Amino acid sequence: MSRPVDDRKKALWAGRFQEEVDRDVQQFTRSVDLDRRLAPYDLAGTRVHVRMLSRQGILSASDLQRILKALDQIDEEIQRNEFPWRDELEDVHMNIEARLHELCGDAGRSVHAGRSRNDQVAVDLKLFCLEAASEWSRLAHRLQAALVERAEPLVEQVFPGWTHLQAAQPLSWAHYLLAWVEMMERDRERIAAYLKIHSVSPLGAGALAGSTLALDPEKVAEELGFQRAFRNSYDVVGDRDFALELSQIAVQIMLHLSRFSEDLIYLSSTAVGWIELPDSLCTGSSMMPQKKNPDVLELVRGKTASVIGHNAALTTLLKGIPTSYHRDLQQDKSHLFPTVDAVASSLAIFHAAVRGFRIDAKAVEADLQRGHLTATDLAEYLVSVGVPFREAHEKVGKLVGLAIARDVGLAELTVDEIRSVEPRCREDVISVLDPQGSLQRRKHAGAAGILPVRRQLEFWRRRLDGEGGEEKG
Amino acid sequence: MSRPVDDRKKALWAGRFQEEVDRDVQQFTRSVDLDRRLAPYDLAGTRVHVRMLSRQGILSASDLQRILKALDQIDEEIQRNEFPWRDELEDVHMNIEARLHELCGDAGRSVHAGRSRNDQVAVDLKLFCLEAASEWSRLAHRLQAALVERAEPLVEQVFPGWTHLQAAQPLSWAHYLLAWVEMMERDRERIAAYLKIHSVSPLGAGALAGSTLALDPEKVAEELGFQRAFRNSYDVVGDRDFALELSQIAVQIMLHLSRFSEDLIYLSSTAVGWIELPDSLCTGSSMMPQKKNPDVLELVRGKTASVIGHNAALTTLLKGIPTSYHRDLQQDKSHLFPTVDAVASSLAIFHAAVRGFRIDAKAVEADLQRGHLTATDLAEYLVSVGVPFREAHEKVGKLVGLAIARDVGLAELTVDEIRSVEPRCREDVISVLDPQGSLQRRKHAGAAGILPVRRQLEFWRRRLDGEGGEEKG
Amino acid sequence: MSRPVDDRKKALWAGRFQEEVDRDVQQFTRSVDLDRRLAPYDLAGTRVHVRMLSRQGILSASDLQRILKALDQIDEEIQRNEFPWRDELEDVHMNIEARLHELCGDAGRSVHAGRSRNDQVAVDLKLFCLEAASEWSRLAHRLQAALVERAEPLVEQVFPGWTHLQAAQPLSWAHYLLAWVEMMERDRERIAAYLKIHSVSPLGAGALAGSTLALDPEKVAEELGFQRAFRNSYDVVGDRDFALELSQIAVQIMLHLSRFSEDLIYLSSTAVGWIELPDSLCTGSSMMPQKKNPDVLELVRGKTASVIGHNAALTTLLKGIPTSYHRDLQQDKSHLFPTVDAVASSLAIFHAAVRGFRIDAKAVEADLQRGHLTATDLAEYLVSVGVPFREAHEKVGKLVGLAIARDVGLAELTVDEIRSVEPRCREDVISVLDPQGSLQRRKHAGAAGILPVRRQLEFWRRRLDGEGGEEKG
Amino acid sequence: MSRPVDDRKKALWAGRFQEEVDRDVQQFTRSVDLDRRLAPYDLAGTRVHVRMLSRQGILSASDLQRILKALDQIDEEIQRNEFPWRDELEDVHMNIEARLHELCGDAGRSVHAGRSRNDQVAVDLKLFCLEAASEWSRLAHRLQAALVERAEPLVEQVFPGWTHLQAAQPLSWAHYLLAWVEMMERDRERIAAYLKIHSVSPLGAGALAGSTLALDPEKVAEELGFQRAFRNSYDVVGDRDFALELSQIAVQIMLHLSRFSEDLIYLSSTAVGWIELPDSLCTGSSMMPQKKNPDVLELVRGKTASVIGHNAALTTLLKGIPTSYHRDLQQDKSHLFPTVDAVASSLAIFHAAVRGFRIDAKAVEADLQRGHLTATDLAEYLVSVGVPFREAHEKVGKLVGLAIARDVGLAELTVDEIRSVEPRCREDVISVLDPQGSLQRRKHAGAAGILPVRRQLEFWRRRLDGEGGEEKG
Repeated sequence: MSRPVDDRKKALWAGRFQEEVDRDVQQFTRSVDLDRRLAPYDLAGTRVHVRMLSRQGILSASDLQRILKALDQIDEEIQRNEFPWRDELEDVHMNIEARLHELCGDAGRSVHAGRSRNDQVAVDLKLFCLEAASEWSRLAHRLQAALVERAEPLVEQVFPGWTHLQAAQPLSWAHYLLAWVEMMERDRERIAAYLKIHSVSPLGAGALAGSTLALDPEKVAEELGFQRAFRNSYDVVGDRDFALELSQIAVQIMLHLSRFSEDLIYLSSTAVGWIELPDSLCTGSSMMPQKKNPDVLELVRGKTASVIGHNAALTTLLKGIPTSYHRDLQQDKSHLFPTVDAVASSLAIFHAAVRGFRIDAKAVEADLQRGHLTATDLAEYLVSVGVPFREAHEKVGKLVGLAIARDVGLAELTVDEIRSVEPRCREDVISVLDPQGSLQRRKHAGAAGILPVRRQLEFWRRRLDGEGGEEKG
Repeated sequence: MSRPVDDRKKALWAGRFQEEVDRDVQQFTRSVDLDRRLAPYDLAGTRVHVRMLSRQGILSASDLQRILKALDQIDEEIQRNEFPWRDELEDVHMNIEARLHELCGDAGRSVHAGRSRNDQVAVDLKLFCLEAASEWSRLAHRLQAALVERAEPLVEQVFPGWTHLQAAQPLSWAHYLLAWVEMMERDRERIAAYLKIHSVSPLGAGALAGSTLALDPEKVAEELGFQRAFRNSYDVVGDRDFALELSQIAVQIMLHLSRFSEDLIYLSSTAVGWIELPDSLCTGSSMMPQKKNPDVLELVRGKTASVIGHNAALTTLLKGIPTSYHRDLQQDKSHLFPTVDAVASSLAIFHAAVRGFRIDAKAVEADLQRGHLTATDLAEYLVSVGVPFREAHEKVGKLVGLAIARDVGLAELTVDEIRSVEPRCREDVISVLDPQGSLQRRKHAGAAGILPVRRQLEFWRRRLDGEGGEEKG
Repeated sequence: MSRPVDDRKKALWAGRFQEEVDRDVQQFTRSVDLDRRLAPYDLAGTRVHVRMLSRQGILSASDLQRILKALDQIDEEIQRNEFPWRDELEDVHMNIEARLHELCGDAGRSVHAGRSRNDQVAVDLKLFCLEAASEWSRLAHRLQAALVERAEPLVEQVFPGWTHLQAAQPLSWAHYLLAWVEMMERDRERIAAYLKIHSVSPLGAGALAGSTLALDPEKVAEELGFQRAFRNSYDVVGDRDFALELSQIAVQIMLHLSRFSEDLIYLSSTAVGWIELPDSLCTGSSMMPQKKNPDVLELVRGKTASVIGHNAALTTLLKGIPTSYHRDLQQDKSHLFPTVDAVASSLAIFHAAVRGFRIDAKAVEADLQRGHLTATDLAEYLVSVGVPFREAHEKVGKLVGLAIARDVGLAELTVDEIRSVEPRCREDVISVLDPQGSLQRRKHAGAAGILPVRRQLEFWRRRLDGEGGEEKG
Repeated sequence: MSRPVDDRKKALWAGRFQEEVDRDVQQFTRSVDLDRRLAPYDLAGTRVHVRMLSRQGILSASDLQRILKALDQIDEEIQRNEFPWRDELEDVHMNIEARLHELCGDAGRSVHAGRSRNDQVAVDLKLFCLEAASEWSRLAHRLQAALVERAEPLVEQVFPGWTHLQAAQPLSWAHYLLAWVEMMERDRERIAAYLKIHSVSPLGAGALAGSTLALDPEKVAEELGFQRAFRNSYDVVGDRDFALELSQIAVQIMLHLSRFSEDLIYLSSTAVGWIELPDSLCTGSSMMPQKKNPDVLELVRGKTASVIGHNAALTTLLKGIPTSYHRDLQQDKSHLFPTVDAVASSLAIFHAAVRGFRIDAKAVEADLQRGHLTATDLAEYLVSVGVPFREAHEKVGKLVGLAIARDVGLAELTVDEIRSVEPRCREDVISVLDPQGSLQRRKHAGAAGILPVRRQLEFWRRRLDGEGGEEKG
């Protein structure tokens, strides 16, 4: 399996090695096909690192200039897809360093002073994660705005709300949609906290112990846009909390989108039909000519499962190692990258879904008569005329039984029938059985009625506008 | 399977039902053996709810007094383990309400006006989660203090630091232990953010739509110690983000403790022997008389796996449902409760472990000679005399090869041998090969050397004291 | 934390220990509240072990008799709930051995010769797992029988089959239910393979190396009902493949039940209403008097999430350890036990669900007109008159578009309308648009039509009867 | 977002659609970059399908010939990497069908008669999974052979066996390695069962209901090498049990390899040093010139975490859907493919690791003196002279305490010291304290001693040869 080391092809770290690494092993260990995605962050980190080395007298001014120029060239090569990526150089870091050697000789060979791939990959990956989180927040904000826009004209329209998928109580359609805005808001609050906690630069921590050279990690942190530098080198080279937490936030966001998807798939299923999805979000069947399937939403659900699996992988990865850096960590990228893409694309596609679905008012109207939606209104009416709630609940239960026996809706019972069960009812009892009226009667803050929903809308318009402005600022 | 409803035994919600619930079904659906743990929160919520009902004119002053008195009695019964829990009443909520009926008749039958088990269990569980998070933070703080205390006298003692479990560079033992303090700090920062985001009361949201009664959710929130009340009733009855995030934080904390455990198990393994665990944290073998096993630390590792599994369960649970409340959610408690206990007990046991382990200085000293720990110091020395880093790395690699061939440590090479590879070395090159000296030479902020470690200790003493005081205040 | 060892309370393994185990540590490490469930298997293993010791001359005949008698007494004490379980004795094994000491003095102190808790817990847990798997198989078989019974009278009744929850093609209701029988069959095939692979006794493997005493593991295996004894002692003390695979089988079974539950919850949702669940499988709402919720099925879905989480825990547990026994493994029971119970109770409850749900033929009939269920029949008809399938598919797609524009079902188009798109159609084209007729036309093996469904039923009647008989034998 | 359908670019299923699918949606839903890997299976399935159509009179002989020729061409195009893959055609199936249209016009347009992408992807993926499982079995067999080969000369060499990473008892090194052979054997037994259970062809099940055309699924199954065809069309289109079980088997295999890796990483760690890995399986550090890290083994551990995560994804995917096909399932491939590759490459790399690691006999020898490895031998000796085991355990525990106090090994105690604790000891007691002798004394089947290990080796030589032969046959 082993061959004597061939000097032309050997790895940058191979000074002490007697045998060349086997090709199968090279294949097994390389990550450059994946981690090249980190190149922009790697270049940014290297620029800041060499400027610091120069300021600290470890690198000459002329070497610095040569290196910066070469980094610019590498940047362009990568963007133009002309960079000569080589598998045998293992990863993005070694590829870029080797290219620096080619482009500026000894100067290039000085760039890694006071640095290890351990702190280098940590800073690259952290910059990537922080940027991804910010992008998710922007997309979630855009989705919130679209939801508020859709909700505006739907305040007085009745959504036959369910629990357990059984008809429960009438909601305002706007209330239903604004619940999604709340969930997105919690997602954004978590992201905001995340961006603060992990704004710590690991560059300068070296392999695990920092350096005997006079590095200046604080200045490096500042130039890279972090709030501060690491306090403990050993901690940060093995730290992937920022990756794990990003993945956990992804799980929460995707769970929200998955639950929305579940709703929309249910609501647009042939047998329910309260909404219709736009053709542009559906695909057909290769065999059944009539099919129009909610594939996009099913894929959101499916990608949620994927993100959950990637989170499990990351968690298990970290579970399996002692402190400090271990090569197991290389696998983190193959789970983080698809996670980041799944969340971003799902938030974007959902924006289209929210704007595009059509409510079939006729179908909804027809189902308002099913499931005795105002039974609780009736029980609360009984409370208002002096019946203890638990007794009111039982009596309405009996009335519902009566309605079922007669195969009608609760709203179709007569005053006499109702009074036969609870004589304290007044004539006006009938009025509480109308689902539309139910929206009028729910007035306290946060309830599903017209008044509190208007207040919610007002709140969100202000909040989202404020933040939109903030983002531009 | 079904029997006609027997009035004496029927459920509080059974008004409309024709058949009695089957005993097997009762067994399958009941949760009271588990959720009775929520009783203190359920009582707190009920007290605040009925006071609000009374203020709003929905409950008479005399009924309120009767109910409050009965709640006190129930509280005592539960604490004395004399409460008559009944499986057939399904859950903690129904058990307490039924007992109220017994203790104060019609007054008790009024308590559930404007409330559903949906918002009730949401508020109970949220209070439980917020309290658990606070407790974890306190325990993590105590662990940090113990680590700092242990680190104090170890600043100048050399820990032969590893990456990949291969000898890497000399650290200060104090630096090694302070890395753990950093991890605990991130955990505590996450908890602080968590406590803010989820300080939202769901009580008043009812089943999903709020109530037609004139509830006052804001006042209820205030009395329960929340920062605010829900904005959207539909959102909060199905929201378990607070449960999921608590479980995700638990995963992060346990991963930290698991990685520490992995270290300590390795370090105390017979073949390594750098540390010894106190007898009080070990157990023996039923067959092998000489064994002293690090069971406690292995169980921390094992409980980490359990917490990860419970997190997977919670995540999958939420993945499988549409918006709003579904009974699937009942399972959340069987995963949250053991999670909360595992984290709290592991933080506590780790406090004992940190204070109790003994360093075998002789064994560590012996291993300082293995693994050429100061190779990087030598490479950085070469940089200081003008060798580009990559070339310095290669040359030291060759010297290491030389040492291996001679079966000695790098530190045992002579100046002449070193100069034969790199003539630019001065006589003083030998001095950089001493691991102890390495701690002197690492001076920049965050590095593993004596100077920056003293600064870390100073930082933590101030930070932890400040917070300790805060907690008492 | 540590106290000098108090001889009266010390653990059976404590010979070499200087300090007593701390009470918190005892609390943290004990497992007896959980693993006492293994007592019947532990007693069985001990009986066989001591008989072997006696045959091999390691235990006297009189000691053997004393021990066997004491084991009978312990068995009774446990069954009568009178056994003096003690937390400070850690686990079920130590509790039983200590009780043996009490009951028969020195004889009891000989029982553990040639045995370790490592092989003891392995054999206990394996016997438990094999028994659980057999029980699942029996319950799955019973469920299959119930499904076949329900399917019998439903062969000619049309189920408007879906993919993506969109109307797809007409199936026989019997075909739909028999799909579930297939899934259960795969589950049972896996269990059968499982029972063979893991029928290997670990007793005699000791702590890891077997014994220097003249044990007879093969005879022990035979008496315990295993197919053979271990071949390699080191392998079996750390082996939990049998636990992991049981948990993986549980995941598969529960996924099947969860998908069925999802179907039934959807089909019984207020807006769909094709089926109605019996009252006995539903529960109500504490607030909404009209509710009848499919809680039992939702709990099956929820317990599936739990089983998935427990599987994740077990997997992570095994991921985190080297070969051989480590205490982490103690956690396996807290995930296996609820898994075993969840599967058994869900299979039992599903038996009731399958027998109890009622089909609302009127509601189904009404929905046969939605979704153009016979579009594929029409396309295949076109193939039969010479249209290439892809062209047929497009043309029927156009006809569906026409129907949608006219707001009618495909079956309501006229022959002329159809011929305007595809003139090769004959008059009889209309006949293929009837969903009922579709069942007549699907004739090949495995298809959803009447003929192949009758063949399926015949197959299952024979297969299940055969096996039922086998089980009795 | 939507545009009127442009006929030239529209999807093969787009007959009924009014709006074109959005480009973002296309991007979101396409899978062809991934599922093109299924092309060989897709072509095989299509060949068999069209031959069957022709035999059944649904396709003319001349069309059949045209199609088969075109399929050959497509096959070549794909192998030569010249196939015009188009994202807008979504998946591998549509790409191949569209290419057939181009290559043979109307004949190509007939190929999909009686088929849906639902049964098509099911058969493709199943063929892929069955082949992967067979390949794993072959690789595991090769690894077993390498282990047996390494074990042969190591029968009498002592491995200081551990539990809890604490010195436990002496094993034969061969015994230690043969434990791995056992684990691989269980893996292979599972695969064998898997290959039987899932050898069921889904082709002919169509979208969910089979076809009204006279298909012959049994013949199709036979030609594709399956044991039988599906019995129930509805079952097989939504069935992914075969994918899930493959992934579960992958988890088991990888857990075995991960535990071996953990061992080897520990054993080769600087502080332990019992083995050395070949340079060819290690990589170095970019910063620390002396490092030689066990990256390959760490990556096996890391890939295990990945496989576990992919399994979680697949499980969650299936958890989230009702019966029948849903688009969520598309995500299965992005988890199955990396799983299959990780297992195959890890088994291959482990083959190299097993053959390549070197035992440092001197280092092992030195550690034989640590940890009182023969304490259990001594306790069993006491049993042989009439001391009840539990008493013997205690007495040896005291002797170990004595040795620790004197800072010597148990083997260094004198006969007098031993007799002072247990006078029944004879002079020969000293002989049982030698680890090498311990291998002589462990004689029963399956024990870690020389005799039973020789029997194990004999067993495996016969078993593996037999199977090797079988595989060639």
